[in-house]
Amino acid sequence: MKEFSKEYIERLNTMIEQHDTEAISTELKDMHPADIAELVNDLHDDEALYVMRMLDDETAADVIVELDEDRRHDLLELIPNETIARQVEQMDADDAVDVIQELDKEDREDVISHIDDVEQAGDIVDLLQYDEDTAGGYMSTEMIVVNENMSMPDCIKAMRRQAEDLDEIYSIYVVDDDGRLCGIFPLKTTITNPSASKIKHVMEPDPLSVRTDTPIDEVALDFEKYDLVAMPVIDSIGRLVGRITIDDIIDMVREQSERDYQLASGLSTDIETSDSVFTQVKARLPWLLIGLAGGLANALILDGGEGEQDLLTILPGMALFIPLIGGTGGNVGTQSSAIVVQGLANGSLDLARAGKHLFKELGIALLNAFIIAALVFIYNWFVAPDSDPHRALITTQAVTLSLFCVIIFASLFGSLVPLILEKLKIDPAIATGPFVTVTNDIVGMIIYMSVSSWLLQVLLP
Amino acid sequence: MKEFSKEYIERLNTMIEQHDTEAISTELKDMHPADIAELVNDLHDDEALYVMRMLDDETAADVIVELDEDRRHDLLELIPNETIARQVEQMDADDAVDVIQELDKEDREDVISHIDDVEQAGDIVDLLQYDEDTAGGYMSTEMIVVNENMSMPDCIKAMRRQAEDLDEIYSIYVVDDDGRLCGIFPLKTTITNPSASKIKHVMEPDPLSVRTDTPIDEVALDFEKYDLVAMPVIDSIGRLVGRITIDDIIDMVREQSERDYQLASGLSTDIETSDSVFTQVKARLPWLLIGLAGGLANALILDGGEGEQDLLTILPGMALFIPLIGGTGGNVGTQSSAIVVQGLANGSLDLARAGKHLFKELGIALLNAFIIAALVFIYNWFVAPDSDPHRALITTQAVTLSLFCVIIFASLFGSLVPLILEKLKIDPAIATGPFVTVTNDIVGMIIYMSVSSWLLQVLLP
Repeated sequence: MKEFSKEYIERLNTMIEQHDTEAISTELKDMHPADIAELVNDLHDDEALYVMRMLDDETAADVIVELDEDRRHDLLELIPNETIARQVEQMDADDAVDVIQELDKEDREDVISHIDDVEQAGDIVDLLQYDEDTAGGYMSTEMIVVNENMSMPDCIKAMRRQAEDLDEIYSIYVVDDDGRLCGIFPLKTTITNPSASKIKHVMEPDPLSVRTDTPIDEVALDFEKYDLVAMPVIDSIGRLVGRITIDDIIDMVREQSERDYQLASGLSTDIETSDSVFTQVKARLPWLLIGLAGGLANALILDGGEGEQDLLTILPGMALFIPLIGGTGGNVGTQSSAIVVQGLANGSLDLARAGKHLFKELGIALLNAFIIAALVFIYNWFVAPDSDPHRALITTQAVTLSLFCVIIFASLFGSLVPLILEKLKIDPAIATGPFVTVTNDIVGMIIYMSVSSWLLQVLLP
Repeated sequence: MKEFSKEYIERLNTMIEQHDTEAISTELKDMHPADIAELVNDLHDDEALYVMRMLDDETAADVIVELDEDRRHDLLELIPNETIARQVEQMDADDAVDVIQELDKEDREDVISHIDDVEQAGDIVDLLQYDEDTAGGYMSTEMIVVNENMSMPDCIKAMRRQAEDLDEIYSIYVVDDDGRLCGIFPLKTTITNPSASKIKHVMEPDPLSVRTDTPIDEVALDFEKYDLVAMPVIDSIGRLVGRITIDDIIDMVREQSERDYQLASGLSTDIETSDSVFTQVKARLPWLLIGLAGGLANALILDGGEGEQDLLTILPGMALFIPLIGGTGGNVGTQSSAIVVQGLANGSLDLARAGKHLFKELGIALLNAFIIAALVFIYNWFVAPDSDPHRALITTQAVTLSLFCVIIFASLFGSLVPLILEKLKIDPAIATGPFVTVTNDIVGMIIYMSVSSWLLQVLLP
């Protein structure tokens, strides 16, 4: 993979300042559009525009598709709608839709009205109606389609016509006279079986397909499971309307897992190391503020109500175990919610099996809780948490019992929240990180204070 | 995607118990190997073996490749080596190597010695020498290779011979007389350019390729960046030795991101929701024990040395803010390390830019620290943390100043640890989760106690 050194970027900036068109052209000539995109990502707006203007429409189209989303958004605002329309015409319909969706509503219609290729404009308008997270939102209309009654030589002629515009052919889709998908065959069949009298005799019938409204993460699991590179998409009556290709799926898998990871780490929006200090603070501060609110809530809980104001004064050893109680609740909850989030994402867990999962989780929690609580009890046996033996015993019992309760609660709560979100059709990944950790921290303190106060009443009359 | 209901599995189990071979055959006949694998994953050992024995070698081979790793490991121990050898013969060489690598050293050699197909055995022995995490460890030797001096009709004949064994052809690789990769062309060229006199006139020269020792995560980034479905692999003198296909890359991206996610969530090994209670406790307890050790260390720190034993007694309000200090340190550190881990994984950060990143991180930390500390100061202004105004002021100052220091430390420490691990060629993802959180928690308590004790000396003589 190409990396652009700081020196290279500086050299290019100098060329741009000097308007040395010839030198820049030479640099760009043999560069892959994805590399030009990486370069444009690193340039300032004016320089980036200058470079974009030097590219022919087809290359510019490829570059735009490959740009970082933020950079693309900024650049599109600076490029005239007529130019965008010309470049969009060169894109695959699904990429064109992605680009157009980033425009304001007004610009969107303006760009579409400037597209000369009526077929492309029609495809874009059709694709725009699908939900972004469904097969329809990911599919492209570029593909090779032949009729089941064609002979292989006719089919090859038809393919030759259609193949011109296509970067990659993976499979050839076969439809009946009504346009319904009825078969598929790999391109290699044209080599191994060049003289078949009718396509329908060499095609594989009943191919795997998805409907336009199939959620894209289900489609991705199919790609992974069946090792696919492309998947045909059909409408509600079985007509072939597009295909999804693996390059979009791998990007989606990467983006989705990065997003889950960021949410689990308490980053509220997608940020890159290259983002500015302010952008990063904006993405990071929200969780820290939630944590702050949680921390202050804990201070209030530890301070207690009027009546039990003196719990920490009566049992000063209690304060020592505050980090342990809070930390354990957070750790247990994080594990539990991560397992559910990941299970839901990779298809190994679903709502139908939620009850069974919670039951098993309870077993795990009991075992973990028993081991952890026992270890703390033994530790406190040797390192008494108070010089007064009676108070030391109360503190030890309070810590042990609280830890046990906290682990059980945190396990079940951490598992339950993402399951409930999934049920409500909200992304379960937002349960991880801030929400579960802070809640478990607060509930942990409430349990600790309640258990101690109860033990105090029972054991220290 | 197919899902097997509990009822279906039970029905199948009954068939197996009754040795109803015919009924089972009917069930399996039209099933995709990936679906059979999913079924076998859900069966007990004996039933799974029974099903496997009913499959022909080719289907059995496909099923073994698709099985969950744990299940595959268990089943391979139960299948005789001769049978494994027969099935391995049917696999692509890269899949065969994956399977053989799961065997004990002895079984490994025994299985290889039972492979009748000398070419396949040779390929497997060759592939076994590559490091698992490199292009060599992921490549397969099955591909279509033609000589640059062939004509297209000759080439098509050669392809027809080679294509029989191949599931998918994406590109045709062109080599010179010494076997060095010199070009590539997509299969569609055989359709659009069927009468080319020499391949070298229609091929794209200087194709993108990787060397056998290129790390697989770099290869994956190339696949994503250039939208590839296959990548040729060359040796140190440029000879074509294999190709990597997208299906292995997408599995690797998914596995790696699941692993990073699990490490960040404190799960020590790869676990699934379907794993047993004991397996899950084994994966989850280690972090909880690290957290326990951290929590007990914090108890010792809060207890103080002999001299400063009374800090929490002199300033009882201090105890209230223990969760806030610890929690904030953990949150900030998690964010910082997550950003570095993700940047290193997606290529947007490397060691050469580590200094610049740390400097930026310091800026972010200062801004976050200022905002958080100011908010806590204001809060404590209104809700005094002690009834005595003088002690309330000391506590407020101690909390504010400590929070400020903790945020700066946690940011830099959280960023630095994964960078150091990367430098030491250890997976930086292990930095996230337990290690950073617990360390920040402990350092946070040390800072809090030190700052408070210092302020106490200065302000309360």
